[in-house]
Amino acid sequence: MISVIAFDGDDTLWHNERIFSMTQQKFRDLLSVYVEGERLDERLAAIELHNLGVFGYGIKGFVLSMIETAIDVSEGQVPASIVQALIDFGKEMLRHPVELLDGVDETVRRLALRHRLILITKGDLFDQESKVARSGLADLFWKIEIVSEKDERTYARLLEEHDIDPAQFIMVGNSIKSDILPVVRIGARAVHVPYEMTWVHERAELDPEAATRVWTLESVRDLPPLIARLSRRAV
Amino acid sequence: MISVIAFDGDDTLWHNERIFSMTQQKFRDLLSVYVEGERLDERLAAIELHNLGVFGYGIKGFVLSMIETAIDVSEGQVPASIVQALIDFGKEMLRHPVELLDGVDETVRRLALRHRLILITKGDLFDQESKVARSGLADLFWKIEIVSEKDERTYARLLEEHDIDPAQFIMVGNSIKSDILPVVRIGARAVHVPYEMTWVHERAELDPEAATRVWTLESVRDLPPLIARLSRRAV
Repeated sequence: MISVIAFDGDDTLWHNERIFSMTQQKFRDLLSVYVEGERLDERLAAIELHNLGVFGYGIKGFVLSMIETAIDVSEGQVPASIVQALIDFGKEMLRHPVELLDGVDETVRRLALRHRLILITKGDLFDQESKVARSGLADLFWKIEIVSEKDERTYARLLEEHDIDPAQFIMVGNSIKSDILPVVRIGARAVHVPYEMTWVHERAELDPEAATRVWTLESVRDLPPLIARLSRRAV
Repeated sequence: MISVIAFDGDDTLWHNERIFSMTQQKFRDLLSVYVEGERLDERLAAIELHNLGVFGYGIKGFVLSMIETAIDVSEGQVPASIVQALIDFGKEMLRHPVELLDGVDETVRRLALRHRLILITKGDLFDQESKVARSGLADLFWKIEIVSEKDERTYARLLEEHDIDPAQFIMVGNSIKSDILPVVRIGARAVHVPYEMTWVHERAELDPEAATRVWTLESVRDLPPLIARLSRRAV
């Protein structure tokens, strides 16, 4: 039996990475007088990684890392007007409309009729809450959990808190690192729905041991038949 | 009976505002060539207020607002070195040791023996989690709730989620706006322990109607006798 289906938010229910990606393209254009695009991406990735431990995930940390990168590649010459433009990029990102992925709305509505749904999303509390509210899906979820890191400890804590048997829990997400590996490692199951692009710090490989409890779907639309099949098998 | 005692974190359990205040003094020194301190404070407060709706509470938003203020008061002339210094101030703040207020450690330990304690703290998820972990108090709390806004809706939701009767709930905090008013408005009680300073956006007045369910203490050390008295009275 599957009693609880959990969903990731960013790039599983709604588009996210492409908003970062669009912003990063504008960042490249803005800094092109100082450095070529590929080199800028490398510096930004390195500075982001270095800052993750102090800033955590989210748009505000991303903006601060863009500003540091701009100062770095311009050797301290970047003018205030570019710094302000980067802050304005961040505000645009934070205000960007929430665009659901194709098939999400009807799939989540359909699954909510028969299962308890949890949203487990990572990042900035204020920004994620705002996205959940604007998604139009909030009322379909039994619980909404915004966490700072998606690791085994986090999933184990959530399952314990909500009294969920790992054998009856399945997590649906686009990130192997955050949505799949830690979930199968605590004895639950996971459905991987890859997104069109993956942030460099979210890339990971499935190991063969884990793969026996993981299903990969091309679209979230294929989820209801899979859940039905898994539920029947166990009866 | 008081069955659940909730505590605010920043400036109730550990020092926070003075870290902002120290940083703001360094900000004034750094920008003194462009503008005098009082005028800078005014501009920063206005820009922070304007940005709250998009950034929420927390250090990263504060840093972004300081950068915008520096650009504003320097009429776009602020050099990248100052921008980098402001980002470094933010990193220092995020890494700052957690300093418990006087009397907090023993009081919380003592109350945890007889009551269920909840920590209800507002702000950046990643930063607050890190502070809770470093406070050494995490294990004393039955629940730890990090929220983006402390209003009536938030308190009502938390009490419902954890099945707590408002009549048996008391909230302890330094902010009348966030810890006291919304709590008494949902029918629960509150203890105000003022801190040595209050952020301009947290200032509020107690209304007479609310004041009948609010106690003001000089120190958190006075909390155990008050709780004992309130518990006896109801028996």
